[in-house]
Amino acid sequence: MTREPKAITSLQNERVKAIRALEMRKVRKETGLFVAEGASILITAREHGFVPQTLVYRAGSADSGVARGLVTWALKEGAECLEASEAVLAKLASKDNPQAMLAVFRQRFVPPPDKPKRDDVWVALEEVRDPGNLGTIIRTADAVGAAGVILVGTSCDPYARECVRATMGSIFAVPLVRTTREAFLTSCMSWRGDIVGTHLDAHEDFRRASYRAPTLLVMGSEGPGMSEEVAKACTRLVKIPMAGQLDSLNLAVATALVLYQIRGAGLSL
Amino acid sequence: MTREPKAITSLQNERVKAIRALEMRKVRKETGLFVAEGASILITAREHGFVPQTLVYRAGSADSGVARGLVTWALKEGAECLEASEAVLAKLASKDNPQAMLAVFRQRFVPPPDKPKRDDVWVALEEVRDPGNLGTIIRTADAVGAAGVILVGTSCDPYARECVRATMGSIFAVPLVRTTREAFLTSCMSWRGDIVGTHLDAHEDFRRASYRAPTLLVMGSEGPGMSEEVAKACTRLVKIPMAGQLDSLNLAVATALVLYQIRGAGLSL
Repeated sequence: MTREPKAITSLQNERVKAIRALEMRKVRKETGLFVAEGASILITAREHGFVPQTLVYRAGSADSGVARGLVTWALKEGAECLEASEAVLAKLASKDNPQAMLAVFRQRFVPPPDKPKRDDVWVALEEVRDPGNLGTIIRTADAVGAAGVILVGTSCDPYARECVRATMGSIFAVPLVRTTREAFLTSCMSWRGDIVGTHLDAHEDFRRASYRAPTLLVMGSEGPGMSEEVAKACTRLVKIPMAGQLDSLNLAVATALVLYQIRGAGLSL
Repeated sequence: MTREPKAITSLQNERVKAIRALEMRKVRKETGLFVAEGASILITAREHGFVPQTLVYRAGSADSGVARGLVTWALKEGAECLEASEAVLAKLASKDNPQAMLAVFRQRFVPPPDKPKRDDVWVALEEVRDPGNLGTIIRTADAVGAAGVILVGTSCDPYARECVRATMGSIFAVPLVRTTREAFLTSCMSWRGDIVGTHLDAHEDFRRASYRAPTLLVMGSEGPGMSEEVAKACTRLVKIPMAGQLDSLNLAVATALVLYQIRGAGLSL
């Protein structure tokens, strides 16, 4: 039997409090849940077979069109649907660029790539710190058709709201792996293709290198860059040339430049 | 005569209030001032001939080393130097990643490029919205040695704290122009080289195009993209290929990919 939407007007409602609590990393970790905002991101979730646990929309905003379709889908899949008053939605939605619809999903991590396919490109990020950067990298990984993103060591949370938003929906499309540095280093030993790292001390221009597939691109942290252990695990170290005295680019920008170089031949209009 | 640092411990101090007020765009506009945080950004400012109006540092943090050098320089240049208590600095510094030193500078905009040099590359952004994107683009423009960044129409503020931080100091290195869409379109008419736009409807792969120097790269806004008028002013419309169904990249990522393509030959390790 299909469930019915429930109206919520009280800020003290337990469901409202539980969803708000997902702004805290600790609560996301304990529950394994996260929030995604905006109809277009939710459409991407649907396309990739994700089903929300809870869908919240502003009262009156889902009478027709795309929003109606999303509510119908969510109800049919057994999700709890909450029709929230303006005030309740204002509490739940992000402050900048609030949306009329948001949903709670279960986080999904996959095991490390055991036998990567011949043409696979994976991206590994060592201790990425900024959720905006991480989200942008996940979005770019999707755009080049990368097989997935591996978070090595202590990373910011890919399911933080800012990261989810920066992915523009790609959070539902790109497989995510979490691993320790030790486990990552071990897995590197059996990687068949090139393990490519960008490094300040490298002598090879990233545009000149040829990359043996399957390729694993490893990027270091914002600021400190890559650890020595991880740099040693790389089979190729490359550098992005820069004008003047600059020695670094934004992490998401650098990742995109190398990813487009690696995947270049496989992408066309 | 060199001035002396002044100790500040009261949150009610007028200078503290005035610096805090620079978090508001309205106040930045009225005063023409902005705040930059962190010793490494201030070193970049010094290298580019910027002099702070006011320098604030945490009491005890500037007894030696780089911080001492910056205070000496600021005093010599006639800047007001404030030695702030922990509490005062906590009020002034950004909440995420607070720094022990920050300074107030005068904003600087330059006139539109009248006679661009033969090899110049300029970046024009139509109604860029996100200060993080803008800052990252300014940083990338610096990395490829672009001549400057032109803000067309209603733009986010390049002197917003989030933008300044994302530039990592390049805010002091890259000339910035502000212009209306009308004035921009007029200036396009006399541009001698290619005016390159990225556009969803383009049929040319950005990696295949040859770009006639001096090059003006125009990027549309996050989301809506480029206006029809600006697209019409472009002499080349190009597209970045993507896998699957995606149709867009993060604005700073897309800008970087095309900039490296345009400037590619001129950059080496």
